[in-house]
Amino acid sequence: MFGAVPRLNVEKIMRRFRLASLSLVGLVLSSCGAKPPVDRERLTQISVINALMLGRYEGGVSSRELLRYGDLGLGTFDHLDGEMIIFDGKVYQAKSDGQIREVDGALKTPFAVVTPFDVDGTVTCDGVKSLDELDSRMDRATGLENSFYAIRVDGRFSTLVMRSVPRQEPPYEPLAEVTKRQSVWTKHDVSGTLVGFRCPKWVTGLNVPGYHWHFLSDDRKFGGHVMDCVVESGKAQFDLCQSWLIELDNSAELKGKDLGKDLEKELERVERPRGAAQPGTPGVE
Amino acid sequence: MFGAVPRLNVEKIMRRFRLASLSLVGLVLSSCGAKPPVDRERLTQISVINALMLGRYEGGVSSRELLRYGDLGLGTFDHLDGEMIIFDGKVYQAKSDGQIREVDGALKTPFAVVTPFDVDGTVTCDGVKSLDELDSRMDRATGLENSFYAIRVDGRFSTLVMRSVPRQEPPYEPLAEVTKRQSVWTKHDVSGTLVGFRCPKWVTGLNVPGYHWHFLSDDRKFGGHVMDCVVESGKAQFDLCQSWLIELDNSAELKGKDLGKDLEKELERVERPRGAAQPGTPGVE
Repeated sequence: MFGAVPRLNVEKIMRRFRLASLSLVGLVLSSCGAKPPVDRERLTQISVINALMLGRYEGGVSSRELLRYGDLGLGTFDHLDGEMIIFDGKVYQAKSDGQIREVDGALKTPFAVVTPFDVDGTVTCDGVKSLDELDSRMDRATGLENSFYAIRVDGRFSTLVMRSVPRQEPPYEPLAEVTKRQSVWTKHDVSGTLVGFRCPKWVTGLNVPGYHWHFLSDDRKFGGHVMDCVVESGKAQFDLCQSWLIELDNSAELKGKDLGKDLEKELERVERPRGAAQPGTPGVE
Repeated sequence: MFGAVPRLNVEKIMRRFRLASLSLVGLVLSSCGAKPPVDRERLTQISVINALMLGRYEGGVSSRELLRYGDLGLGTFDHLDGEMIIFDGKVYQAKSDGQIREVDGALKTPFAVVTPFDVDGTVTCDGVKSLDELDSRMDRATGLENSFYAIRVDGRFSTLVMRSVPRQEPPYEPLAEVTKRQSVWTKHDVSGTLVGFRCPKWVTGLNVPGYHWHFLSDDRKFGGHVMDCVVESGKAQFDLCQSWLIELDNSAELKGKDLGKDLEKELERVERPRGAAQPGTPGVE
């Protein structure tokens, strides 16, 4: 009896540890099994920009899933319902009036760009007179013309011109049509963060060549797609992305539509109408 | 004393299990940590085709690393030393004379395409008179024009026209120059496997739009880049790839060279000179 009792205890303990180690392994496996953790050097995008340009606004990937690819990003939402800003691992939605709300994990996206943000370099951005000037400063700071960068600029902005897009219903019009009815508004003397991506020029049709900026205010009250800005003072941090993942999941299958079509001019008009921070620009309050 | 001895044993056992479970977790973590296992739906490519077109022949990723992205693929090697065929998780090199050797894990690649191959569909390929006809059959069988497919065709080939490229030394010439001196040879009545990828036409500059085929003989004695073929009898299996990963790792940074340059015509000449299986084609034995 004296010998039997301790043996039973030992067996129980062994069983408990076996179970504990198995469930721990299971936990680790499930967290890096079917959808493994992403390479921190990787920029991931959901679908391709030409699919969005041609009117594919139905979301395919949830905000929850999106956060598995990174903590900094931008994009849009199901039914083209506003501008997306991913910041510090949270997903924010700028509705067509520029008001911000944090979205729950279920809301889907038809197009987004995201990366786990790590700081590879920093540059001050004081007295930057336009978004074009900001782009040039970033070009000089980053240096590699055929590479992808994620960027955040925390600062004080004396002028900020933003837009957002209204929710659409099918049958969907192309993005160049929708943005003719976009809301554009100007804010002065605000603090917040520009979230941006810089793609090489040869991503045409797949992503936005050059720079693409969204904004989120420090108080999380407003934001949007940035058309122009004047940076009073700021600090830019950038992250060189060494690999580029495009999650397609049939999002490029648009029956009867030519996804290879050259939509560069339309994209330029949709994503980069610059100089709006100058006084007297029409359509800007 | 009676109480103390079993307790010591229990502690030892607990320690042993703690260590065992920790090392098990460590093993799992290390196998899916820094470089996690790849999504089985993912097509991965090393660098972009225009970098290779412009003469970037220095390998960046080892064959060993390449196999972490999949078990079926094609590409080339460090110094453009022949054609690569990845088949059943092994990496084969077709030297410029078409002779095959299995490579060790250290040999690097400047450009390769690879995926974990899963069969999504099958189609018979009997009596296919040319590579163009094979492409058309695959178009009909696969169906999605804006998607990526990996394909293997196991069969008996009455004619097979292949090429391979000779090892290069710096300063490197562009690929269109090197392929002017490629070896081209014809084989008759052979058994083996075509390993191919089908990319949408909008991958221009990044990968080969349309079909790209390499061959490996059943006896693992010869292979190469396929220029044309006549399939006596065969079976094609294809795998729809829903995500597309490009590992750049600075491979696109070619100082002073325009990576965005339209090299489509040169690529067409380099990767797809068709119709060589017809009698009387010059340069073909």
